[in-house]
Amino acid sequence: MLKLYQFQPSGNCYKVRLLLNQLGTPFQVVEMDLMAGATRTPEFKAKNPIARVPTVELEPGKFLAESNAILWYFAEGTPFIPTDKLERARMLQWMFFEQYSHEPYIAVARAWISFFGVPAGKERELEERIQKGYVALDVMEGELKQRPFFAGNQYSLADISLYAYTHVAEEGRFDLSRYPAIRAWFERVQAQPRHLRITDAVPAAS
Amino acid sequence: MLKLYQFQPSGNCYKVRLLLNQLGTPFQVVEMDLMAGATRTPEFKAKNPIARVPTVELEPGKFLAESNAILWYFAEGTPFIPTDKLERARMLQWMFFEQYSHEPYIAVARAWISFFGVPAGKERELEERIQKGYVALDVMEGELKQRPFFAGNQYSLADISLYAYTHVAEEGRFDLSRYPAIRAWFERVQAQPRHLRITDAVPAAS
Repeated sequence: MLKLYQFQPSGNCYKVRLLLNQLGTPFQVVEMDLMAGATRTPEFKAKNPIARVPTVELEPGKFLAESNAILWYFAEGTPFIPTDKLERARMLQWMFFEQYSHEPYIAVARAWISFFGVPAGKERELEERIQKGYVALDVMEGELKQRPFFAGNQYSLADISLYAYTHVAEEGRFDLSRYPAIRAWFERVQAQPRHLRITDAVPAAS
Repeated sequence: MLKLYQFQPSGNCYKVRLLLNQLGTPFQVVEMDLMAGATRTPEFKAKNPIARVPTVELEPGKFLAESNAILWYFAEGTPFIPTDKLERARMLQWMFFEQYSHEPYIAVARAWISFFGVPAGKERELEERIQKGYVALDVMEGELKQRPFFAGNQYSLADISLYAYTHVAEEGRFDLSRYPAIRAWFERVQAQPRHLRITDAVPAAS
């Protein structure tokens, strides 16, 4: 069976659980102890040289890493990827935005504040990350004033990708009360069939 | 005609020029003065709310941003994207790796050292970025010891994406002499038909 190496509170890992649950694809979770450096062992680096979770084992010995690439792999040929060429590229645009301009600020602030502690000497860097996180939220708010979902009229991988850390941004001290369009989009995402919460420990029954 | 809003020395912009030249797709360049904040104006943010280059105007009023999403848009249905499903996802894996684990370190160190100057108080952050850049290079070296190109046996968008900033990493003070597999891959990339250098100011004649 498909194996997901993961850390439960990670939004990047949650993206994969959410999509797999929505596709009805069964999978098995292998929880990794990040505090103990479980992804930095030679054994794990043989699975994924980038030494991060999520990593999936598609079949024995066949691995794939990077949350958004994993989403793409499972969603090909499904309604989670738009059929229109430009909408499909826009979906990828927002997924690259997520990894470059959103996750390093919103996810890292949350990880430091709510899970691992702010590293010594990084207090000022935390403030900078929070500031840049708000820039990302401003961009998202502007988009969601114009369209219901990031790739257009349809829920897609871009929404799964951006929802993962945005909906828990308050755990990184972000104030979402000033973002009505983002909060309305949360409700549209949560209303999708077979939605799963980040705290749901196992896939919902098929 | 297709318009590319760009900054010539940017590796992210070079990716797009290189692919378009290899595809034989004509395009027009609009050079943006990043020092003068040309991407931060309301006019430019109406084209790309993320306020970065590269941004392409596909037809009047239709824009697309994020270098790797732009690559995907133009390469769909061409040999620059593998036909095998897992190789295609692996290509995306390396493109997300590029934006998350490589560009923020190697490209930013180069930008600070060779173009914009190290921001005040960021000397220690620069050292951290260089250190993390070496981690990315180590991962690439390990991969390229095992296969000729990142998605497998074939030159793909992943190679264009990772070549862009890696081949100029010395401008960010990275020592590439200890990476023989990366340097051999440079030669394979440069030997591809219709290769373009980052300093080539205009597309080669079709």
